[in-house]
Amino acid sequence: MFEHQRHKPLRQLAQPRELLVVCAPMRSNVNLSRIARAASCCGVERILCTGTAKLDRRIARDGADTLQIETHRTLPPVLGELRVQGYRLVGLEQTTDSSDLHAYRFQRKTALVIGNERTGLKPEVLKLLDEVVEIPVWGMPYSYNAATATAMTLYEYCRQYPDG
Amino acid sequence: MFEHQRHKPLRQLAQPRELLVVCAPMRSNVNLSRIARAASCCGVERILCTGTAKLDRRIARDGADTLQIETHRTLPPVLGELRVQGYRLVGLEQTTDSSDLHAYRFQRKTALVIGNERTGLKPEVLKLLDEVVEIPVWGMPYSYNAATATAMTLYEYCRQYPDG
Repeated sequence: MFEHQRHKPLRQLAQPRELLVVCAPMRSNVNLSRIARAASCCGVERILCTGTAKLDRRIARDGADTLQIETHRTLPPVLGELRVQGYRLVGLEQTTDSSDLHAYRFQRKTALVIGNERTGLKPEVLKLLDEVVEIPVWGMPYSYNAATATAMTLYEYCRQYPDG
Repeated sequence: MFEHQRHKPLRQLAQPRELLVVCAPMRSNVNLSRIARAASCCGVERILCTGTAKLDRRIARDGADTLQIETHRTLPPVLGELRVQGYRLVGLEQTTDSSDLHAYRFQRKTALVIGNERTGLKPEVLKLLDEVVEIPVWGMPYSYNAATATAMTLYEYCRQYPDG
């Protein structure tokens, strides 16, 4: 018997998530807010934004409170610092030499770098990354919305590390 | 070297997707439109909506043109017909006795049934389903947005059936 349950108890992690979400300057704070809600649900603790990032609390919900949100002016210095801290820098983008997300095995300590909805990740950011993953697309309009693709990627990471 | 590529050639399916997306009356046509874009990108050909479903073309993009979109008054007769056609009826919801999406093995011929953002799937719909899947949640706000959860589930189905 299936019975709707609101607010099921949260799944517990055995250790904190070592996944960070890093966003290029986004065109839409709606997308950014959707990413924040999804990341928070996945147990991500920290999200790094650039540009005029501002969360819409009606969309991000509690994610706006529970996430540690940092805003930076540009990505390259942030990525340099994260590399020093041992994060693998993984872009989410359609590029040459990208890896299929279906086959990609994440390192636990990963910074997932999300590109702008229109322009993607800039060359000066792409050249700093260790890997780029992309999600297969079988139909129009050729690419997933940025927040949708991020949700799928967060799902895949969590599938690989259900306990953190 | 990673170089941004817009409009990469689409992945080809070896056979048409035997996945349908079926939506309860949704609160937000934005969510419905996001679901339509993601489904279209995944190669889904047909989406069945209920209520006052209306796609926002700025969000659904080409999905509004490439998808076969049907609107029905209520779900139960639709689900009865799909069962006769051999579809496995799989709800996406937080319920008692639901299966963890991480471990769930989809039947190829599946109708994925999405609940309303607030009220989920009603008891009279839940009792018609073969299975309910849910996605683990580790953090606030206790649940994914409906379009986000749908994207994750479409991803998982496509991961299991990359060639259709």
